[in-house]
Amino acid sequence: MPIASPDRMAASGGEDALTALTELVRADLEACNRLIVERMQSPVALIPQLAAHIVAAGGKRLRPLLTLAAARLCGYRGMRHVALAACVEFIHTATLLHDDVVDESALRRGQASANALFGNKPSVLVGDFLFARAFQLMVEDGNLEVLGILSAAAATIAEGEVLQLVTQNDTTTTEAQYLQVVEGKTAALFAAATRIGAVVADRPAAEAEALDAYGRNLGIAFQLVDDALDYAAEQERLGKTVGDDFREGKITLPVLLAFDRGDEAERGFWRRVLEERSQAETDLAAAQALLERHGALRDTVERARRYGDEALAALAAFPEGKERQALADIVAFCIDRAR
Amino acid sequence: MPIASPDRMAASGGEDALTALTELVRADLEACNRLIVERMQSPVALIPQLAAHIVAAGGKRLRPLLTLAAARLCGYRGMRHVALAACVEFIHTATLLHDDVVDESALRRGQASANALFGNKPSVLVGDFLFARAFQLMVEDGNLEVLGILSAAAATIAEGEVLQLVTQNDTTTTEAQYLQVVEGKTAALFAAATRIGAVVADRPAAEAEALDAYGRNLGIAFQLVDDALDYAAEQERLGKTVGDDFREGKITLPVLLAFDRGDEAERGFWRRVLEERSQAETDLAAAQALLERHGALRDTVERARRYGDEALAALAAFPEGKERQALADIVAFCIDRAR
Repeated sequence: MPIASPDRMAASGGEDALTALTELVRADLEACNRLIVERMQSPVALIPQLAAHIVAAGGKRLRPLLTLAAARLCGYRGMRHVALAACVEFIHTATLLHDDVVDESALRRGQASANALFGNKPSVLVGDFLFARAFQLMVEDGNLEVLGILSAAAATIAEGEVLQLVTQNDTTTTEAQYLQVVEGKTAALFAAATRIGAVVADRPAAEAEALDAYGRNLGIAFQLVDDALDYAAEQERLGKTVGDDFREGKITLPVLLAFDRGDEAERGFWRRVLEERSQAETDLAAAQALLERHGALRDTVERARRYGDEALAALAAFPEGKERQALADIVAFCIDRAR
Repeated sequence: MPIASPDRMAASGGEDALTALTELVRADLEACNRLIVERMQSPVALIPQLAAHIVAAGGKRLRPLLTLAAARLCGYRGMRHVALAACVEFIHTATLLHDDVVDESALRRGQASANALFGNKPSVLVGDFLFARAFQLMVEDGNLEVLGILSAAAATIAEGEVLQLVTQNDTTTTEAQYLQVVEGKTAALFAAATRIGAVVADRPAAEAEALDAYGRNLGIAFQLVDDALDYAAEQERLGKTVGDDFREGKITLPVLLAFDRGDEAERGFWRRVLEERSQAETDLAAAQALLERHGALRDTVERARRYGDEALAALAAFPEGKERQALADIVAFCIDRAR
């Protein structure tokens, strides 16, 4: 059986790819969703109330989908991967809750954030609860390697989030630092989510490494595209919020590219709006014009595409089939959001 | 060898008891402190900076001391308990950091809180990092029972903290709810800290249960005394802060007792200051007078003493010796802080 080339694997993409992946593991995903609802219960009623707001808010469940599909790709036939996928979603949700608190985000997934509705304190504590629940589920599963992978990922996520804080409002941030932030806050959980698919299937280390590389590169591509979308005029036309990163002074790749390619007057602009956070109403449009002039969004997406190619290359280690095709198409899905 | 009666076991107490316990496991505690400093490191420099502020702030290390002494009480001769004691301290520290964020505490252990110095966002994220580190340490130790005990404790702590929020500013809170808060936010980690001493020593379930009962009752006694101290005039004379719970409108046992024993005018006072949080400068003194009139602090400490007796009774399952005496004396230490 010939191994499809990365290009062939990525032939189809877009929203269809997410639908196809969801269909492929539908029974597993439904079991995972039931477990999520069951295990976020608590005699303290505010916990499931608040958790439901974010867990059941119609997220695409991308990370647990990756765990479910990765396990099936590895030929796993049992159902242990369902609980591990739930762990991944709980950790992701805890991160969102803590990120909402600290970023004072008003909106998440188009709904009022848990933080805005319930206050900072409950959001922090319910995040802690979900994080603890994730570890309880892993302990019930009983695989120390999975526990090691996800506890290391959790530490790396926190490191990435702290580094993001440190680099915020600092235009001397380097691309290497930016990448370290992205690898921590986003790619570490993608990598862990796919790697545990190989572990639960008891596959050799080489396959775990390949799935780790797939998830890590996909996660980086996903975040790069996210960072481009935050400035995309097309998003504005679709009625989506843009400029969150801009208002917070987050230093993302589009900004780093435009800053690097700009003249001294332009750098003065970036310093004023991002470092001093002195922003007038027209400044977002001015920033978008600078990003356009220097091709910063285009090149950010191009960079994402290269990470996507790395993700596709990692899949070549696995036999052709529906699972591999679905995971390959998800790469295109993550990148094509930027079109 | 006769089993000492609870009364005999508690013969000595006070600060000397903490010193004696610390001396008894000095080498273990020093190894634990070294491990704590080593494992809170990160390439992201803000993490050890912030963590050092709270981890190295001269806390008494009561919880890890309990783990170290409990393991030795069970005849454990290895050094695995050192890493588990560090896990317990990391979880405790993460809880403090998250509690500081949400309570807007200005002071913790007499120093400016990490929150006040570094901001809410870093405190939440460094708490997450320490929590993840605790699980990484447990995974390295490799005992699933320990992982189960501490992940369950972490979930229970979060539940207790959320319930505390729900009952805050609500004078219809029952004593049963108050006790549920205390069991969650404080006693669960004390119980886990002592229980894992029996697990690491590979002792029978009955000893793990006995140490769990010791820790749980000790933790409840500790928190009851804390809640009494927050209103104690003697503390004020010593220059310590009182009235934190009062200002936040926390519903603690002293308040519940005074509310229950008060007349309608007094209940109106409690509703105004705790529910509506409309407080004048003289209201703390007025609250202290009401607590005094109804013997609420005395009876709270008396209640703590009864939990302390339960803790002592649980120790009777273990052979007489230095470790048992030190753990018995810690009960008196926790309660005598109120004198």
